[in-house]
Amino acid sequence: MPIPFQRIGIVGKFGDPGIAPTLTELYHFLHGRGHEVLLDSQSVELLKNADVKGLHIDRLPEYCDLIIAVGGDGTFLAAARAAADFEIPLLGVNLGRLGFLVDISPEQLTSRLEQILSGQHKTEQRCLLHASIYRDGAEIHRQTAVNEVVVHRWVTPSMIEIVTSIDGVYLNTQRSDGLIVATPTGSTAYSLSAGGPILHPGLNALVLVPLNPHTLSNRPLVIDDNVSIEIGFSDAKQINALVTCDHLEIPDVLIGDKIVIKKADKAIKILHPEDHDFFNILRSKLNWSRG
Amino acid sequence: MPIPFQRIGIVGKFGDPGIAPTLTELYHFLHGRGHEVLLDSQSVELLKNADVKGLHIDRLPEYCDLIIAVGGDGTFLAAARAAADFEIPLLGVNLGRLGFLVDISPEQLTSRLEQILSGQHKTEQRCLLHASIYRDGAEIHRQTAVNEVVVHRWVTPSMIEIVTSIDGVYLNTQRSDGLIVATPTGSTAYSLSAGGPILHPGLNALVLVPLNPHTLSNRPLVIDDNVSIEIGFSDAKQINALVTCDHLEIPDVLIGDKIVIKKADKAIKILHPEDHDFFNILRSKLNWSRG
Amino acid sequence: MPIPFQRIGIVGKFGDPGIAPTLTELYHFLHGRGHEVLLDSQSVELLKNADVKGLHIDRLPEYCDLIIAVGGDGTFLAAARAAADFEIPLLGVNLGRLGFLVDISPEQLTSRLEQILSGQHKTEQRCLLHASIYRDGAEIHRQTAVNEVVVHRWVTPSMIEIVTSIDGVYLNTQRSDGLIVATPTGSTAYSLSAGGPILHPGLNALVLVPLNPHTLSNRPLVIDDNVSIEIGFSDAKQINALVTCDHLEIPDVLIGDKIVIKKADKAIKILHPEDHDFFNILRSKLNWSRG
Amino acid sequence: MPIPFQRIGIVGKFGDPGIAPTLTELYHFLHGRGHEVLLDSQSVELLKNADVKGLHIDRLPEYCDLIIAVGGDGTFLAAARAAADFEIPLLGVNLGRLGFLVDISPEQLTSRLEQILSGQHKTEQRCLLHASIYRDGAEIHRQTAVNEVVVHRWVTPSMIEIVTSIDGVYLNTQRSDGLIVATPTGSTAYSLSAGGPILHPGLNALVLVPLNPHTLSNRPLVIDDNVSIEIGFSDAKQINALVTCDHLEIPDVLIGDKIVIKKADKAIKILHPEDHDFFNILRSKLNWSRG
Repeated sequence: MPIPFQRIGIVGKFGDPGIAPTLTELYHFLHGRGHEVLLDSQSVELLKNADVKGLHIDRLPEYCDLIIAVGGDGTFLAAARAAADFEIPLLGVNLGRLGFLVDISPEQLTSRLEQILSGQHKTEQRCLLHASIYRDGAEIHRQTAVNEVVVHRWVTPSMIEIVTSIDGVYLNTQRSDGLIVATPTGSTAYSLSAGGPILHPGLNALVLVPLNPHTLSNRPLVIDDNVSIEIGFSDAKQINALVTCDHLEIPDVLIGDKIVIKKADKAIKILHPEDHDFFNILRSKLNWSRG
Repeated sequence: MPIPFQRIGIVGKFGDPGIAPTLTELYHFLHGRGHEVLLDSQSVELLKNADVKGLHIDRLPEYCDLIIAVGGDGTFLAAARAAADFEIPLLGVNLGRLGFLVDISPEQLTSRLEQILSGQHKTEQRCLLHASIYRDGAEIHRQTAVNEVVVHRWVTPSMIEIVTSIDGVYLNTQRSDGLIVATPTGSTAYSLSAGGPILHPGLNALVLVPLNPHTLSNRPLVIDDNVSIEIGFSDAKQINALVTCDHLEIPDVLIGDKIVIKKADKAIKILHPEDHDFFNILRSKLNWSRG
Repeated sequence: MPIPFQRIGIVGKFGDPGIAPTLTELYHFLHGRGHEVLLDSQSVELLKNADVKGLHIDRLPEYCDLIIAVGGDGTFLAAARAAADFEIPLLGVNLGRLGFLVDISPEQLTSRLEQILSGQHKTEQRCLLHASIYRDGAEIHRQTAVNEVVVHRWVTPSMIEIVTSIDGVYLNTQRSDGLIVATPTGSTAYSLSAGGPILHPGLNALVLVPLNPHTLSNRPLVIDDNVSIEIGFSDAKQINALVTCDHLEIPDVLIGDKIVIKKADKAIKILHPEDHDFFNILRSKLNWSRG
Repeated sequence: MPIPFQRIGIVGKFGDPGIAPTLTELYHFLHGRGHEVLLDSQSVELLKNADVKGLHIDRLPEYCDLIIAVGGDGTFLAAARAAADFEIPLLGVNLGRLGFLVDISPEQLTSRLEQILSGQHKTEQRCLLHASIYRDGAEIHRQTAVNEVVVHRWVTPSMIEIVTSIDGVYLNTQRSDGLIVATPTGSTAYSLSAGGPILHPGLNALVLVPLNPHTLSNRPLVIDDNVSIEIGFSDAKQINALVTCDHLEIPDVLIGDKIVIKKADKAIKILHPEDHDFFNILRSKLNWSRG
C-alpha cells in the first residue's frame, strides 16, 4: 500500500543558493521516509545529487501528491499558481522568517513534517482569482492570482480613470493610481499597504482597494467572492495601464479592453500544523505584540 | 381574502413635528387602499385623527404585517430593532434626503408604495447583532444592534486596553479609544468614519475596527458573521468603558465582565423598490459623482 | 507714467479650444485698459487677431509684468514654473470650476480684474522646489516643481527601496511605491490622495508622504522647508524609478544617482482678490459643506 | 564659583516604587558631584534619606536650575508643565524603554549625565500650548499642554459638532468624536493614532486632527503656530464635550463657551546628549527598522 503523499515535489526560492542546506535536509528526510522526491529544475542543481530528477515548476504538480515550497511567501505563491489546476495540497517552509503562508521554520522542519505527513494537520482552502482580458468580445488572455489582481497606471505619472462594474451593475468611475482586487490571502500583502482591511482566510470575500484615489471618500469595498468584477477605462483619457497577477504582468492592455476578474473554480489546499493559528501569525508579522 | 400587508405600522422620526405632512399623506394613502394603519404613540399625535390607534414602538410590530419608517436612517434603525423578533418586513421613507436605509423619497411616496404593496419589490435580509454582558459566567444583559456594537473608553481621556478573542481564539490586546464591531449595514455608518471598509449588504461578514489604536499597524479585520466575538479588559488597567448598540447605551460594564457579540438568529427583512441599487446610493451618499 | 502691470502675458489651458471666449474677453478688457498684451504661442491662435503677438510660454515671463493663467490648476502650474526665475506675479482665472490656484471665475472676470489691476489685491508667496539629480558627485539635471517632486516605482509592479536623509542625517529606508515631497501648494494635490495632511499655504514647510509603504507605521513627515532632502536607492535591489516634478518626467535615474530636493531661492507671487479665503476654497473643493 | 546647574530637581514616575534604584543612583551621582538635589514629594519617600528635601512638583522648578524627569514620556510631560513658567531646562531618563522625550537609558545614566552637566549637550526648544475657556467674553480657565489639547465628545456615544476658526477666519463645522490640536512634540503621541502626520520637533507649526470625522474628506491641517485657534459648538446640538490638556481634564465646558488655543509665550528647553537623533528615535519607536 502506498504511503500518503507518495510523490512530493519541492519548489525552492528562485535565485537563492542559501536554501541549499534546507533543501538537502528536506530531501534526505523525505527520501528516508520512503517518498519519491522531485524538485523544480533550478533547485535540483543546488542538491548536487545526480539521482534526483528536476522538472520545470509548471510541470511538477502533475507528477506529485504534495508540493512543499521552501522560501518566502513569494515562493509559495509561485508554487500555488503552478499547482492551481491540480488540486494537490501545498505546504510552506520558511528560511528563518515567518511568512503568512510559509509557517514551518527550518528548526522544526523534520518534527513538523513528521506530524503533517502522518496525517496530523489542518487543511485550509484558499481561493484563486482569474483575470481575463477581453478584446472585441473575446477573451484574449487569462492569468491566475493567489494574492491579488492589480490595475496600475503605467509609464505615466498621471492618474488613470477606471470604470468598475460588479455583475454588470455600475459601481463607480475613479481617478487614481489604480485598483487592487485582493483575495483574503492577498489582503495581508500589497492591499494592506494601500489601506485595505485584513480579510480572515476563511471568508468567502474579495476586497477592492483604490490606489491613492483622487476622490477622498473612496474606500475599500468588501464583496462576496461569487461575483464578476468588470474593469474598463474612460475613453476620454488615453490609457496607460498594466494588469498584474501577484506582480506578474499581463501583456499590454489596450483602450476598449475589458478586464474581468472572477474566482477560479478550483481552490488551493494548504496543509498546516495542527496548532496553526492565523491570529498568532498576524500579531507576529504586524508587530502587534507591542511593548 | 385579506390584501397583502393587511396591517401596517408607521414609525415616525422622534421629536420632529415636520414629518406631519408626510405622515398624513401616508396614512390617507394606506387607509384608502384598505389597509389597517397603526402609528407609534408619538407619531399618532401628529396625525390629529382620533380614529387612529397609537402603540408604543416596541409593541407595534406584534400587530403588524409591515413597518414603514418615516425619517432618517436613525428612525429606521429604531424600527428595525423593535421589529427584530417578529420577522416582519420594513421599508423606509426619507424626508427629502436619501439615506442608506430610507430610500423612498416623499415626492415618490405613493407611486413607489403602490408598486411595493402590489408585490413589485426586492427583499433584502440584513443581519442583526446581539451584545451580551457576562458577569461571573452569567448573562446579565443583552441588547440588539442593526449597525454596530461599540466598546468606548468612557469618562476618561486615556486609552483603554481591550482584549479580543474570536470563537475562543485570542486575537489581540489593543490600547485604543475603543473597538467597533459593525454589520454590513453599519459599515457605512460610524465604522466608515473610523477607517473601516464598506461591506456589501449581501456579505455574511462583520468588521472589527479599532478606534485610534496606539499600535499603528492595527487594521480593520473582516470575518465571517458566524462567530462569537469575546471582548474583555486587561486587569492591569482600571476600566472605564461603555458598550453601545447603535448609539444606545448598555448599563455599566465592570472590570471582569465579558462582552460577547454574536449574530442574532433572526435577520430583518427590508423591502426596496425593484430598481433599488446599493452602488447608486453609495455614490450619492459619499459624493463619488465627482467633478 | 506707465500704468501698473504695463505688459501682461496670458497663458491658456493647453489643447482646449473652449477657452477662446474667455481669452477674447480677457484680451479686449486688458487692451481696452491700455495694457500691452502677449499670449503664449498656442493661445494666440485662438484669438484670431493678427495684431497680437504670441511667444513660447517659457519666453513670455521675461517680457511681462504679470502673467494671467486661464484654465485649471494645471495651467497655473505651467505658468508658474515658466515664471519661476522672473519674480513677476501671477493670477489665475478658472473656466467655471474653482481651483486651489485659479480663483477668479469667468462671470466675475472683468470686475475682479478691475480691482486687482488697480491695486486692490492680496499678494501671496508660494515656495518652489528644485529637484537635482547627482551622478558621480555632479549635478546632471535640475527641474522645478510648484506642487511636488515624486519618486515613483517605474515599469515594475514591485515596490522600490528608497533611502532618505535630511540635511545629511539618515531618516529611513522604505519599501513602497514611491515618495512624494510636496510644498504647501502641492499638499492639496496628489499628496492628499496619498494620505498626506493639508499644509496651510503660509507655512514654511514641506511634507514627505510615502506611497503605499510596506511598513504600516510609516507616516507623512512635515519638516521645515529650509532643508536638503537626499534620496537614494538600496543597491540590493535593481532600480526602476522615475522622478517627476508636477507630473513632468526627469530623464532616467540610474542606480547610484542621488536625488536632492531643496526649496528654490525665489518664490512665486500670486495675486488674489482681497476677499480671497483659503479655508473657503478648501471647504468648497473638498465638499466639506456637508449635508 | 557655583557649578552649572547648581540646584537640580528630580521628578519621578508617579506611583511606581520600581524607580527607587534609579532615583538612588541618580541622587548619589549628583550629590557626589556637588549639586544640591531636591525631589518631588512623592519620589523623596522612595529615597529613604531624611536629609533630602521633597517639594510638590509644582513648587520644585522655582528652586532649581535643571529638572531631571525619571520615568516615561508621561512623567516628562508632568515635569515640563510644572516648569513651563520658569524657563529652566529639563532632561529625561527612561526606565529601560526609550521614549520620545526620555532619551537617557539607566545603563548610561552617569556617563551621559557627566557629559551633559559638563556642557556637552544639545538644547532644544519645544513650544507649549495654552487652552483657555471663555464664557461671556471672560477667560474663566486656562491650562497648559506640552503634547496636545483635545476636545472630546463626552458621556455621549453620539458625535459632536465642532465649529473652528483660525485667527477669526471660519475654517469648518465638523461632526466627529472630537478634535486634537497637537504641537510637534504631541504629533508622535495621540495625534499619530488618530491619523495625524509627524511634525519635526524643530517646526514652528501645529496640527489639527479630527477624530473619526463624519465627513470622509476631512484631513489633518498643519498651520503656523503663531495663530489663535477658536473652537465652539453648534447650538443646534446639545453639547457633551470635554477639553483635555495632555490628558488632564479642564472643568466643564458649557454650550456657548469658546475654547481658545494659542502657543504659550515661553517654550520649554530640553537638554539632550550631543548625539541625540530624532530620526533614530522615530525609527526605534515606530518599528521602522523593518525585517
